[in-house]
Amino acid sequence: MNGLGDYISDKRKIIESTLRDFLRKKEGEFGSVNVIGGDFSRRLLEFSLGGKMIRGILVFLGYDVFTKRVGKLGSTNEELLVSQAAAAMEILQSGLLIHDDIMDRDVSRRGKDSFHVQYEKYISSLSDKTYNRDLSHFAESLAICAGDIAFFLSFELLTRYPFEGKNDTGLADRVVRLVLHYSRELSLVGIGQMEDVSLGLTDSGLEVERVLNLYRYKTSRYTFSLPLIIGAIIAGDVDDKTIALLNEIGESLGILFQIRDDELGIFGEKDTLGKPIGSDIREGKRNLIYVLLRKAIQDDRIDRVSGDRIYTLWGSDNITVGDVQFVSDVVRESGVVDELNRIIERYSRKVFTGIGLLRELDGVLPDRIDILEEFVNFVLKRDK
Amino acid sequence: MNGLGDYISDKRKIIESTLRDFLRKKEGEFGSVNVIGGDFSRRLLEFSLGGKMIRGILVFLGYDVFTKRVGKLGSTNEELLVSQAAAAMEILQSGLLIHDDIMDRDVSRRGKDSFHVQYEKYISSLSDKTYNRDLSHFAESLAICAGDIAFFLSFELLTRYPFEGKNDTGLADRVVRLVLHYSRELSLVGIGQMEDVSLGLTDSGLEVERVLNLYRYKTSRYTFSLPLIIGAIIAGDVDDKTIALLNEIGESLGILFQIRDDELGIFGEKDTLGKPIGSDIREGKRNLIYVLLRKAIQDDRIDRVSGDRIYTLWGSDNITVGDVQFVSDVVRESGVVDELNRIIERYSRKVFTGIGLLRELDGVLPDRIDILEEFVNFVLKRDK
Repeated sequence: MNGLGDYISDKRKIIESTLRDFLRKKEGEFGSVNVIGGDFSRRLLEFSLGGKMIRGILVFLGYDVFTKRVGKLGSTNEELLVSQAAAAMEILQSGLLIHDDIMDRDVSRRGKDSFHVQYEKYISSLSDKTYNRDLSHFAESLAICAGDIAFFLSFELLTRYPFEGKNDTGLADRVVRLVLHYSRELSLVGIGQMEDVSLGLTDSGLEVERVLNLYRYKTSRYTFSLPLIIGAIIAGDVDDKTIALLNEIGESLGILFQIRDDELGIFGEKDTLGKPIGSDIREGKRNLIYVLLRKAIQDDRIDRVSGDRIYTLWGSDNITVGDVQFVSDVVRESGVVDELNRIIERYSRKVFTGIGLLRELDGVLPDRIDILEEFVNFVLKRDK
Repeated sequence: MNGLGDYISDKRKIIESTLRDFLRKKEGEFGSVNVIGGDFSRRLLEFSLGGKMIRGILVFLGYDVFTKRVGKLGSTNEELLVSQAAAAMEILQSGLLIHDDIMDRDVSRRGKDSFHVQYEKYISSLSDKTYNRDLSHFAESLAICAGDIAFFLSFELLTRYPFEGKNDTGLADRVVRLVLHYSRELSLVGIGQMEDVSLGLTDSGLEVERVLNLYRYKTSRYTFSLPLIIGAIIAGDVDDKTIALLNEIGESLGILFQIRDDELGIFGEKDTLGKPIGSDIREGKRNLIYVLLRKAIQDDRIDRVSGDRIYTLWGSDNITVGDVQFVSDVVRESGVVDELNRIIERYSRKVFTGIGLLRELDGVLPDRIDILEEFVNFVLKRDK
């Protein structure tokens, strides 16, 4: 575990300093155009530094698994590009969260005000009081712009260095391949998010496989598959079969990650999680546990009274510790927990089978796969 | 004018068929993930085909001015890339308009429902009536996703063809340079848009140069400079000085374009424009004409009664033909029209000086500059 701990803190430092360099440069550029642009760049830097940086670290892992280079990273163009790509993943994540928080009306994120709340405070000082306009709409508009710019900045990072003024032709081919893959995957995140929004509108058609598919596209692929693949592409001639394998590992890992998120959102404790217990029940999230509970109610594995109580609790403002305990008991007694465990087992098997296949590839160093495997365990056992 | 007419209709056809090919392929891909993804791709295609395609056509113009190739376009990788890049500009524009319409609460666009209005209709059929949720927020959320995906698709188009399965190394360098330039410029559009949103909040700090700067970043550069530069980069080894020249021409042309837009928005006729006369007055737009009027009021070049009437009209729901005539009279009598004309002259001079400098560059064919110059005149004299 110490090997992994060092690895993570090492890579985090590189990502942080890349973010600082880039976004401070941007602060200057934007600031020379207008005040709000420079201000935005500062906010984005602070916001991005507050993340867990799973995605950025996975870019390094993907690179390390596939690179032929042995030993410490130096400062070649290829290695610079890895850092840039890792930082790009973090800026992307910021952009996605900024837009997500508008859609979900989340007011806080990473322990601070979410972006549209920040902008509501910012503009209430700007605005003529006499105008009496809808400030929250203006704030959301600014946050829409903020997310958009974050996306564009991530593409800039992928193509910005080390190409300025230099020619490094072999690398350009990889960058084009990388941007192509990156943009394709981001579109899929978008349609996953659309599905998520529309699932909030109706319970009809809410099936286990549909929710797992949602997890696959809305979260898993871009969080796990994409950064691993980006790292692999930068490392060199990775073939389509290997990319498909990384996709599968990442998808399954991401589904497990999301299920863990669902468990924490319902049963997680306030102190470790930083948000009130039962928050996903309060928000009425149509997650996998809800779908399994709903199925159990329809199949009469949960009695009518308990079933009604669950429907009432989901989306209710007032969730007590006793309510969470009640949901926990029902999940256990109705067999929902067993179904959940079967799903977890299915995807765990896929992840570890996939990692086994990675080990068999030519030229892949076992100690690097060990770190990847440690990272997988770390992600799955997190308690926040 | 016929040469230009043929040129435009020729390039439009290429852009349309590129959009169709790409977005129908995407419809299949997205549709295999979820229903709403396939549906989105169809909507985006229809929406994108409805544009004037100025940006796409300018990509071809930029390419034609700088390419060493003589004669008709064939089907080399380079020429395919020009078509892809032109289509990418149109998809980008769709994405920007989708987000813009959310921010401005515009309900129609290109003669049809704007995207968030389309989604409001779409989801009102999906939603459980009992839910009683805020459908317009859900619709806006879907439209935020839609704009995001449009951006990602534009990057995919820039890198997708003709690189799949092939290696064309010299072109890869240009694509990287192109994506870098593209992403940088889009960030500037974003901070321009932020400035525009914040200008809607207060009249303080509303100065002529600030509004011109807004026009430069929010519209001009990405509408005119960017596509010309993209075309030039694809054509080959264009140097930084030439890129700076194209930037200047595009910025000035864009400012003129935007001023023409302002004039049409206030004085344009319903029948040609497809929207009611005086619409920008009704919406209370803080455009250049408003800023000049405001300055004239402050300088007592407009009497107090007329000034008060102007402030009352700006943002009023009920604008009559007589009101528009009144504004028109004030603009003329107060000297605002002269100031406006001086600004127009200043930027016209910049455009035509810039085009003159283009003519002097090595290897640039005069007949291609002629088409560019015709196009400039066409853009400036439009009445809708």
